[in-house]
Amino acid sequence: MEHLLEKLSENGESGIYPCHMPGHKRNGWGELPRQLCRMDITEIEGFDDLHQPEGILLELQKKAAELCGADESFYLVNGSTGGILSAVSAALPAGGHILMARNCHKSAYHAAYLRNLTISYLYPQVLKEFDICEGVTPDQVREMLESRPDVGAVLVVSPTYEGRLADIRGIAEAVHEKGIPLIVDEAHGAHLGFSREVQENSNRQGADLVIQSVHKTLPALTQTALLHVNGDRIDRELLRRFLRIYQSSSPSYLLMASIDNALQYLERDGKAAFAEFRKRYEGMMEKLSLCKALKFLPFQREHQDLGKLLISVKNTEMTGRQLYDILLNKYRIQTEMAAESYVLAMFTVNDGQEGYDRMTEALLETDRSLVRKPSLAESSGERYSGLYTGAMGRDSCGRSVCDMDVCGRSVFGSGMPDENADGQDSTDREPCKLTEAWDEIREEIPLEESEGRLAGEFVNLYPPGIPLLVPGERITGELCGRISSWVQQGLTVQGVRQAEGRCLIRVLAAGVHEGRGICFEGQKREYEDGR
Amino acid sequence: MEHLLEKLSENGESGIYPCHMPGHKRNGWGELPRQLCRMDITEIEGFDDLHQPEGILLELQKKAAELCGADESFYLVNGSTGGILSAVSAALPAGGHILMARNCHKSAYHAAYLRNLTISYLYPQVLKEFDICEGVTPDQVREMLESRPDVGAVLVVSPTYEGRLADIRGIAEAVHEKGIPLIVDEAHGAHLGFSREVQENSNRQGADLVIQSVHKTLPALTQTALLHVNGDRIDRELLRRFLRIYQSSSPSYLLMASIDNALQYLERDGKAAFAEFRKRYEGMMEKLSLCKALKFLPFQREHQDLGKLLISVKNTEMTGRQLYDILLNKYRIQTEMAAESYVLAMFTVNDGQEGYDRMTEALLETDRSLVRKPSLAESSGERYSGLYTGAMGRDSCGRSVCDMDVCGRSVFGSGMPDENADGQDSTDREPCKLTEAWDEIREEIPLEESEGRLAGEFVNLYPPGIPLLVPGERITGELCGRISSWVQQGLTVQGVRQAEGRCLIRVLAAGVHEGRGICFEGQKREYEDGR
Repeated sequence: MEHLLEKLSENGESGIYPCHMPGHKRNGWGELPRQLCRMDITEIEGFDDLHQPEGILLELQKKAAELCGADESFYLVNGSTGGILSAVSAALPAGGHILMARNCHKSAYHAAYLRNLTISYLYPQVLKEFDICEGVTPDQVREMLESRPDVGAVLVVSPTYEGRLADIRGIAEAVHEKGIPLIVDEAHGAHLGFSREVQENSNRQGADLVIQSVHKTLPALTQTALLHVNGDRIDRELLRRFLRIYQSSSPSYLLMASIDNALQYLERDGKAAFAEFRKRYEGMMEKLSLCKALKFLPFQREHQDLGKLLISVKNTEMTGRQLYDILLNKYRIQTEMAAESYVLAMFTVNDGQEGYDRMTEALLETDRSLVRKPSLAESSGERYSGLYTGAMGRDSCGRSVCDMDVCGRSVFGSGMPDENADGQDSTDREPCKLTEAWDEIREEIPLEESEGRLAGEFVNLYPPGIPLLVPGERITGELCGRISSWVQQGLTVQGVRQAEGRCLIRVLAAGVHEGRGICFEGQKREYEDGR
Repeated sequence: MEHLLEKLSENGESGIYPCHMPGHKRNGWGELPRQLCRMDITEIEGFDDLHQPEGILLELQKKAAELCGADESFYLVNGSTGGILSAVSAALPAGGHILMARNCHKSAYHAAYLRNLTISYLYPQVLKEFDICEGVTPDQVREMLESRPDVGAVLVVSPTYEGRLADIRGIAEAVHEKGIPLIVDEAHGAHLGFSREVQENSNRQGADLVIQSVHKTLPALTQTALLHVNGDRIDRELLRRFLRIYQSSSPSYLLMASIDNALQYLERDGKAAFAEFRKRYEGMMEKLSLCKALKFLPFQREHQDLGKLLISVKNTEMTGRQLYDILLNKYRIQTEMAAESYVLAMFTVNDGQEGYDRMTEALLETDRSLVRKPSLAESSGERYSGLYTGAMGRDSCGRSVCDMDVCGRSVFGSGMPDENADGQDSTDREPCKLTEAWDEIREEIPLEESEGRLAGEFVNLYPPGIPLLVPGERITGELCGRISSWVQQGLTVQGVRQAEGRCLIRVLAAGVHEGRGICFEGQKREYEDGR
């Protein structure tokens, strides 16, 4: 089978003179290496067209589908972002009603905005021991769908940023009972299914649309992704329409070639590579089990993905940020992110033993200086909470110190009755029309006066980009205080701005939707259920 | 000033271990060179965030604005496609009315679809001698705006694919008289303004939003582009919103670094490089003036861009496709595209003398075998035509043989009275709501039965992606015949499909909008004016 990188490489050395785009003419320029340029082409003879594939790109996408267990697969050059926009846009008509996990990536919200969708939310539970979100459950999905017969599609995230896996098979069953499609944001799971060592991917568990970032967990270039489609619940022609809309008409062959390359090597060496990957990872975990203070979330094929190393400092005297700094400055290890109570590091099939050894030594040495305190959760035996209780932050360089653990009601905006909000009981149970709220007349007010008002802008700590506050959601006292605290710490909070020493936030103008929170359907029920 | 490629390169050699995305961990894998991977990162410490820039990416974008004469500039990683979607979305509200050149790139139509815009068209004139579109004129724009007071923004293309430059200064004046913004798709003009040798760019001629593909004419990687904004007619916050929506939240640092690199070298060496570029180009043109049969469109700073070599075989016994094949197979020169009556080749600031010499020799030698016949146009002295009279095609490898010359009424779909269409006079003059037509109930019918029906799908030969037929436009007898002819030649026509030996086309279902063509406002007037 023909492979793209080889073909590009050959073309670069063919001696055919390029009187066409791109403008670098296969030559480097300044620091731009010639090695990149000679393989960077436009749609010239024999290289097909991503948006109307009939040659090598059609073959490569067929191969991707075969390897990933999908009916049809599409190479993406605008990241999982482009895939989620396309999937949501194709799965239900403009103006439709989507049920989605509240911890979805911002691109899901953006799709809902562009397509004027009504949103109902699934709120994930929080694993208290580690302050992270679980996936949503089939029961949650089934219950929500029972009461919302007009929902046209369901969108969930699995694995999460921290590696929590949802029961996609069960969720797919619940969704398909209603005859509607399930979209799985599997951005962090492009490696799934390539070996029995790890969980199956969502294609093989019944999802209709699956979006995977190839660059996140496989050896491919940043901004590469795959969209898979299965069965007949999705109009393929409409899906192709939106892929053409949301992606560049000059797609990068370097990006596409790196997708092919990653899949090609997984096919050839995947089994052995994943066996080695798991062996190394579990070898590290075994050594780390000697830690007295630091705790780790163990790999469990069905529940916790391979490769994510969640290092909890909960109930020690150290914060996640401190551990993050120690790993970076003392041990020269750049981790993925830090939250107040943990640090997240990532290993992939492309890590050699050195990375594991360096991390193991660093953590064992660090652990010796720590003392673990017994925790309330451990003594009470409560494993789950509907409330996220950790604080969040961002380091001085703008890197996220916590984002993805923004689950549970207390860290999201809310339309719930809020006793602190001037005694208003604003329990309108209408689901959200994000488009209406985001396009509404807005005003900018001091953050400290925003409690009880409806958000006029997304507020999030980025990356990875899960909104804390969605336009139309009511700003709770707790969230208001947190945002204020983050801003005072000099952290980067998107959606607010500093002016004349004050922090300003956009809210819907007075009189607009006043007295109701429009984005919270389903929240109260789950909360009342004590989950 | 810090530059991105150098910084990425240093980081790649820093010895800091990457326990983060991307999954290649700075190592190559298979054919994927380590040189690419070591510079391909995610948003780690010190590398800022494209969607909330505060460090190096903010500085680089400020520098881009300074170099390009814009108030503010944005790096784009989803090509000009992402820039046009963002610009159109931010320039007028959803449901608004846009006036745009009919020869806009498909991304402009896609933006209109996503935002449910009403479209009125500006039809470019055709330069008969070369069968190509001119830019639209200030008078055309002024006239259309007079009769359409609710138009919220204007979008034009300059330079065109073939290098025709519009009078942007005059158009901007006409547009600003109405207090609305002008968007210029300058995808083919990222090099403009970097030297007095070439035309100024549209930022310096009064455009409010300017989109440039950096990869097309400058030495940068494919899929890179810039969006510039000027003045206060555009809501910057809304513009940023749409840039975040339409672009990956994992933007490629390789792509971004190549934009910086191109601009950096233009700043340092641009003047000398462009002087050399022009000298080489004009040297070639002087030698080519010896040709007897082949004709060339000369460089004219105000009207015809530097670098595009349009080689006309009009009125010779050779077709564009034949010349294209000779250049590729005999002389090993890959040109940009072939039309029936010409071949388009591209030179940029990154071409050495070798490319010019090879092209010159090839053309002089080829010309010696050709005889020029006197043409009707030459004898009649008519320089412009509202009708494009050439045929189009696509070579056997799927490469476009003609697309961008799809101007003039006869090659577009039409809502005009068509005497051949069963005597129907369907002259509804309503402007187009593309969203309504594209989302309408459609049916698939044999192409030969489609004359007079309303298109249900875009039909185009790609690249570069200017629609011949837009959903809602009436399919004329002439266009129907052409499509049929292309399909019979085995050419790739998007928007139709072959089944059981027949060519099928999607049209709006019978009864839907029957009796009216909804996408042609303004067409009749220009036609009647004899332009």
